[in-house]
Amino acid sequence: MNRTYNTEILSVGTEILLGHVANTDAKAISEMLSAIGINVKYHTVVGDNPERLRACVDIAKKRADIIVTTGGLGPTYDDLTKALLAESFGLKLIRDEKEYALMQAYGNERHRAVPNVFTQSMLPEGSTVFHNTCGTAPGCAFEKDGIIVIMLPGPPKECSTMFRLSAIPYLKKLSDEQIVSHAVRIFGKGEFEVDSIFREEMDKMTNPTMAPYTRECDCLLQVTAKAKSEQEAEKMLEPVIAHVKDVLGDVVFGVDVDEIECCVLQLLKEHHRTFTLAESCTGGEVAKRFTDLPGASEVFPGGFVVYSDFAKVQLLGIDAELIREKTAVSREVAEQMAIRSREIMKTDIGIGITGLAGPDGDGVHEVGTVFISLDTDDGTFVKEIRIRRGGVGGRQFIRRMSGSIAFDLIRRHLCGMELR
Amino acid sequence: MNRTYNTEILSVGTEILLGHVANTDAKAISEMLSAIGINVKYHTVVGDNPERLRACVDIAKKRADIIVTTGGLGPTYDDLTKALLAESFGLKLIRDEKEYALMQAYGNERHRAVPNVFTQSMLPEGSTVFHNTCGTAPGCAFEKDGIIVIMLPGPPKECSTMFRLSAIPYLKKLSDEQIVSHAVRIFGKGEFEVDSIFREEMDKMTNPTMAPYTRECDCLLQVTAKAKSEQEAEKMLEPVIAHVKDVLGDVVFGVDVDEIECCVLQLLKEHHRTFTLAESCTGGEVAKRFTDLPGASEVFPGGFVVYSDFAKVQLLGIDAELIREKTAVSREVAEQMAIRSREIMKTDIGIGITGLAGPDGDGVHEVGTVFISLDTDDGTFVKEIRIRRGGVGGRQFIRRMSGSIAFDLIRRHLCGMELR
Repeated sequence: MNRTYNTEILSVGTEILLGHVANTDAKAISEMLSAIGINVKYHTVVGDNPERLRACVDIAKKRADIIVTTGGLGPTYDDLTKALLAESFGLKLIRDEKEYALMQAYGNERHRAVPNVFTQSMLPEGSTVFHNTCGTAPGCAFEKDGIIVIMLPGPPKECSTMFRLSAIPYLKKLSDEQIVSHAVRIFGKGEFEVDSIFREEMDKMTNPTMAPYTRECDCLLQVTAKAKSEQEAEKMLEPVIAHVKDVLGDVVFGVDVDEIECCVLQLLKEHHRTFTLAESCTGGEVAKRFTDLPGASEVFPGGFVVYSDFAKVQLLGIDAELIREKTAVSREVAEQMAIRSREIMKTDIGIGITGLAGPDGDGVHEVGTVFISLDTDDGTFVKEIRIRRGGVGGRQFIRRMSGSIAFDLIRRHLCGMELR
Repeated sequence: MNRTYNTEILSVGTEILLGHVANTDAKAISEMLSAIGINVKYHTVVGDNPERLRACVDIAKKRADIIVTTGGLGPTYDDLTKALLAESFGLKLIRDEKEYALMQAYGNERHRAVPNVFTQSMLPEGSTVFHNTCGTAPGCAFEKDGIIVIMLPGPPKECSTMFRLSAIPYLKKLSDEQIVSHAVRIFGKGEFEVDSIFREEMDKMTNPTMAPYTRECDCLLQVTAKAKSEQEAEKMLEPVIAHVKDVLGDVVFGVDVDEIECCVLQLLKEHHRTFTLAESCTGGEVAKRFTDLPGASEVFPGGFVVYSDFAKVQLLGIDAELIREKTAVSREVAEQMAIRSREIMKTDIGIGITGLAGPDGDGVHEVGTVFISLDTDDGTFVKEIRIRRGGVGGRQFIRRMSGSIAFDLIRRHLCGMELR
């Protein structure tokens, strides 16, 4: 962009103020705007009350150049947001004939009337219409008094899809300078460590720039460049990304990858390998994370949730004596879990996870002690970790981190890296 | 409360504006405030920038009686929020000797120094100190110029625990009128249906009141009463809750229950029953949801992730011929999954889930077709559902809804209700 845009995301939704849902629309939009180098400076949530919403719009007009609204469009809201924003910018609402016809066709196809077709198809005069590919209420964008307004429906799927398909291209067209940003994803070094490695360099950079950010179980380094064209910006970023990879080495698991399991799915497909899982303390979470990804079935035939000693014996055929002697939370049992699950499922890779996620201990091990094993034709590797974080949040973090480590072990094995 | 408090939650966190995380602190706080009848009117998120934060505090002071801040406390932020709020209300920061000593003891115990002990233990003069049971940075509350300010650390676990343990009792003490609110949880009827059943009554009510809200896979009816004491308010709510249960019947799965699986865990413990799961399309998600709950191991020894036909044959011993003939997405295979998993795991209840979560179809069934089976000593029941919702969000919703239905079947079985 040739000027700096400050964005405010204004969400209209009583359900957010009541705490029934988190504001995931603002999260999704912020993530997409960051990726094209547009700053988000404020998130605001207000209920579907005309006066309060009007006051919030007035505040946003003073402090933002781009106002993105979510919610308050569509059949159940009487299109409060649209009416108020149009009024605030002195624009009339006029019917969009194309959207009107599309909504009627949509209703006819399903043999039921779309509610409020008239109101839903009314949009501020002169606006660019964003068709809703997942629902009925269209969104729109207009520019007035030096401010860009983008209006999106509230349901998360409709909102994020419309933003990606329509709002991002709209925003990109506004500028003759292009911003390109990539996220170098890192597992095995924290934000502070990454920050201290690159601090001196980062302080000297102006374009491109780099900034580290922490995620739940890993971190990332965001690299961003501005140039006359996307191609040029990409070219500026290439050596920066190469340098980062060179310095950080094998802790970099990808660029612009969503999660480490996405990278593992890709690698398994490329190498034509399959894997299975025997999960104790993670109780199905790792299988769930992997099968969240469409296409997981190509490389993951299934696995075992062995949440008790009985299940470890009954499903995997692990020696009950071994469990008695070493306890279920042990290097030896972890090893057998990976070996036996792989044998039974006839996969290339077997993973075992056993540990104490808490909140209660077993009187022997510290909560947060987890053994994660990987069995392949090359042998069996077991990693022992100790995660110190208590309480209910701790339990979830221990489970999540154990899964991420298991995925990282598969990645390291497939890439021929040292297992650690 | 004897006056109406309007609350603004002001979150300080660049990571939220970048879209790296959703504002879950605001969600948790809003939920707890709603439950004691305090209105949340605004959520605001701002970065850790003193000028912008100051401007946001000025706005909040004009429109809210309670300002709750999250984030911007603790070692990594230089206690920006605390310094700014104190300044804004004309209060000095003074060292809290008790917190100072506790932090040093905390550090000594772990043989490492807590960073910024000095800054972290500085709090606005006259404030009520909230000790942090999950981290180091204390929170606090004070009342000045008719406004109540509550400051909490940003990490979700620290924030919500401190709010529950310290802020809620602090707020309750402020008033000589008490508000009590309960959520009647409903599975099997949607918000619109519940709304239309009680609409006429609700329109006439003033105290107590009722309001329906939708959740991802279920809905709830919030009932709220104001009175001179909690006991009195509870007494006013008793007949309302009884009436709602009476009208809605067995779709009510509990009052103030977190999720349907919590209710199932409770019931299984009470009835001394165990269950197992064979999951195909849900790929471990249902086991994960259940084992998210501490204490799950008492009633759930483990289960099977049978994500392929091979796994259904190999792990459960289902006849390959049956799968070929009926396909994996069929009533017959679902039935076998529940029966065989229960046999192998020797549990009282067996659950099978097989279906198409999409996004790709199998050429035979519509995406969203799922068979959910329950096997007990009373026989085998299979429920067929068809969920119409496409795309990536659709996949997740289909998986989540299938799990909720499975839990509801267990609930219905244990309560001796009709299976449907």
